[in-house]
Amino acid sequence: MRRRLLLFSVLTGISLASFGQNDKPDPAVVKKIREEGLNRSKVMETAFYLTDVNGPRLQGPGFMKAANWTKNKLTEWGLQNARLEPWGEWGKGWEVERSYIAMTAPYYKTIIAVPRAWSGGTDKLRQAEVLYIDESDTTALEGYRDKLKNKVILIHQPFAIRPSFNPDAKRFTEADLEKMAKDDAAPRDSSYRSMIQAMRTRNAFNQKMRKLAKQGGALAILNTSQLSKDGTLFVSGDFANAASGTAHDELADLTISVEDYLSLSRMAKAGVPIKLELDVKTKFHTTDTKGYNVLAEIPGTDPKLKEEVVMLGAHLDSWHAATGATDNAAGCSVMMEAVRILKTLGLKPRRTIRIALWSGEEQGLHGSKNYVTKHFVDPATNKLSKEGQQLAAYFNVDNGTGKIRGIYLQNNTAAGLIFAQWLEPFHDLGATTVAPKSSGGTDHVPFDQVGLAGFGFIQDGIEYSTRTHHTNMDTYDHLLADDLKQASTIVASFVYNAAMRDQKIPLKTTTAESGR
Amino acid sequence: MRRRLLLFSVLTGISLASFGQNDKPDPAVVKKIREEGLNRSKVMETAFYLTDVNGPRLQGPGFMKAANWTKNKLTEWGLQNARLEPWGEWGKGWEVERSYIAMTAPYYKTIIAVPRAWSGGTDKLRQAEVLYIDESDTTALEGYRDKLKNKVILIHQPFAIRPSFNPDAKRFTEADLEKMAKDDAAPRDSSYRSMIQAMRTRNAFNQKMRKLAKQGGALAILNTSQLSKDGTLFVSGDFANAASGTAHDELADLTISVEDYLSLSRMAKAGVPIKLELDVKTKFHTTDTKGYNVLAEIPGTDPKLKEEVVMLGAHLDSWHAATGATDNAAGCSVMMEAVRILKTLGLKPRRTIRIALWSGEEQGLHGSKNYVTKHFVDPATNKLSKEGQQLAAYFNVDNGTGKIRGIYLQNNTAAGLIFAQWLEPFHDLGATTVAPKSSGGTDHVPFDQVGLAGFGFIQDGIEYSTRTHHTNMDTYDHLLADDLKQASTIVASFVYNAAMRDQKIPLKTTTAESGR
Repeated sequence: MRRRLLLFSVLTGISLASFGQNDKPDPAVVKKIREEGLNRSKVMETAFYLTDVNGPRLQGPGFMKAANWTKNKLTEWGLQNARLEPWGEWGKGWEVERSYIAMTAPYYKTIIAVPRAWSGGTDKLRQAEVLYIDESDTTALEGYRDKLKNKVILIHQPFAIRPSFNPDAKRFTEADLEKMAKDDAAPRDSSYRSMIQAMRTRNAFNQKMRKLAKQGGALAILNTSQLSKDGTLFVSGDFANAASGTAHDELADLTISVEDYLSLSRMAKAGVPIKLELDVKTKFHTTDTKGYNVLAEIPGTDPKLKEEVVMLGAHLDSWHAATGATDNAAGCSVMMEAVRILKTLGLKPRRTIRIALWSGEEQGLHGSKNYVTKHFVDPATNKLSKEGQQLAAYFNVDNGTGKIRGIYLQNNTAAGLIFAQWLEPFHDLGATTVAPKSSGGTDHVPFDQVGLAGFGFIQDGIEYSTRTHHTNMDTYDHLLADDLKQASTIVASFVYNAAMRDQKIPLKTTTAESGR
Repeated sequence: MRRRLLLFSVLTGISLASFGQNDKPDPAVVKKIREEGLNRSKVMETAFYLTDVNGPRLQGPGFMKAANWTKNKLTEWGLQNARLEPWGEWGKGWEVERSYIAMTAPYYKTIIAVPRAWSGGTDKLRQAEVLYIDESDTTALEGYRDKLKNKVILIHQPFAIRPSFNPDAKRFTEADLEKMAKDDAAPRDSSYRSMIQAMRTRNAFNQKMRKLAKQGGALAILNTSQLSKDGTLFVSGDFANAASGTAHDELADLTISVEDYLSLSRMAKAGVPIKLELDVKTKFHTTDTKGYNVLAEIPGTDPKLKEEVVMLGAHLDSWHAATGATDNAAGCSVMMEAVRILKTLGLKPRRTIRIALWSGEEQGLHGSKNYVTKHFVDPATNKLSKEGQQLAAYFNVDNGTGKIRGIYLQNNTAAGLIFAQWLEPFHDLGATTVAPKSSGGTDHVPFDQVGLAGFGFIQDGIEYSTRTHHTNMDTYDHLLADDLKQASTIVASFVYNAAMRDQKIPLKTTTAESGR
């Protein structure tokens, strides 16, 4: 730890002497937390229920089933006031009731497929021909208007598969971590940016095509993604439609494997007659269109501090192509396990500890955003409300199944001085690094955006970007038990430390400045 | 080349002087072959028809369609006497007409599945419960006899998924090739051997289970494999059943993804009620139960040598879960391309060149074995027949889509001295190595076994063992065009050299000995 703490000190210009030892975690408590978290873990049991048993947790009925299960489980573990708290209007719920598509001519071949979220169906088993559209110009689409009836639409995509000469799974090396600690981790390369740009252009085109296909009476539209490979499909959905109530519920909208997509495209282009059969049934739910978060507490015990709250959270909703194991049953299981550890050990936190399992994260951080706005911001002044001022810290886990290697500071230098000491008892488990930079894309962001102390952990990537993130392979078997046990243990310790500290975690705009 | 030739010379104890230069290929011809093979290749066009357009080429109707296409294509290219030659009795043909399985409770999830070859069907769309059997003792199976009716059988498998910290795709390094040249490439490690042993034990158990399941009126039996991952399924079938006419055509026998398999198993073991729906339809063909090879020639032009034959071949049959792109449309496309190159260039080979596209390879090298026995072995003496004595060499390609890095000598040292020189003009394309050892498992083996000069090439593995070999992902998009062009070019040159040489390639038991 010394080496990296020294590095951090040099980089921030803060003397090591100013650290003091006041943030050194209580070794006796660390020992207990490690024993419970590493040796008597229930994290995989929790993950099993959230994934295999519950199924996909897409915003709507899949999420609600899991939310009720977690509420009951947290209550069973002795947490107080476990509840589902509505955060606002969401839109239609949706689920798949049948999904089958195959090629029947020139020969039979099952196609690996998942309906995009809020897709419609085909009513029954239907036979259909393919209409292949080799256009990328949206005005040229109009020429197809009269050819769409009962067709399955296939649009040319400029994809190519490359064999993987790099491993699917990776852990951060010491060199990677050093870079993060110095805040000079390489930015996304330009090929990634150009791929994202190309994807946006294609999505806009596909959006227009879907609308036209629906108007023209097409039976289904097929799509795939550049990242799809080897039977792994990246699947999401037009959530804007669900939220606005304009879900395209008349047209089956299927993501298929890139191998199937490219094969169909080559044949269509070569004039080989193709026939498909498909049977897609989906169901929309309109009974309860509100969104909910799950919340529960371990009450604080210090009369002076128990009104203050340390929060930890992860999003419980997932995409629907699999069971959202690494995104983000992993994070939920870790956070639930962290409070289970603290509760089981009978520790008496000075501050109140509150777990939050968010929803609507995948469609724009809706659960956490709305929670933060409602609870922590005064609408009159647009500044932190009293409740906001009482938040001591928020910790989030949403970077897959990989173990914790450190924490992102969101440029909160003063917090780094504390966290570096909190990581010290876990250096032997690979958690060493405080990275000055911000991480984004998940539920600590709304906290950070209103000036609260919200943080996400550095986690080993494992197969997140190649195999599990938003894919049909995001299943229980892609979880790493040892990594999740490590993460639970470290989160439990961080949350406990934050609940015991004399002061709250300093905020960037005030204490971080005065710390210099 | 010098370095590796020197190495080969040192290792074999044959002086470099004894090489002479009489086996140096004609540079003018090499130049022409390279230009046609590398710049005007049709290898991917051929591969497209054999895969996307033809579909799976399982022994039976899928194979026959491809066989007729290749016969016509070879004729179109100007080869003589293109024909389908029966090699003997095979058994029932088989194909899939529908394959659908999904979990419907506790929630809906499509299951990635492919019927094993010669599987039966379910007659119509059926609902079923799972019967999970956590036994590995075949005698314990008897206890399940009365519980099988209309159930889908799931047998406990001790599999676990591990993320890939090694790349799926690999090429041989210079160090690997050096090892091969010295014949000290590492043997298969013991974990591989123990996996194979465990697989055999499981297969024997599953075989017994399938029989019992059929007797007990089960609807289907599910299976998976340790190698399956990320949506990639390894699928084959009980070919013994087809050959013997006892195909298990009443029971649907489905390979499903390991993720689905393990998820179902965990739920079943935990007592979570599971419901499945499935609709599997397969068709058996009994009109023509014979097996065939495709053969065609470029006639020799030297009156003294034209009765002698240089053969090149690859197996045209495939497993059925995909379109057998790397196993072995790749090899067939390369061999067809090699003869197309020679024919297009109007070269006049002294010996006759014969291409063979084998069948029944996947079920035990049936096509090549029977061809060798019938044509090259005298049944009276069990020695080489006259026709056998006229075979100058046989070259085979069946190691996936990777480019050629050299050739295996099957311990024929004298041949190595020749091939080392034949490789010289292709060192710049990465083909450098003569490996003394034998390679096995495919159609040059029957030639080698009767003492003929039969060889297979060293090819880069690419994703063969991880993603394509006998999988549902063995599709056109997993082929590497540049590698196949390189391979076609080198094979064309080898075959031409063998057809022009004054002597046939020496046989191991005679010339190889005398060469020392």
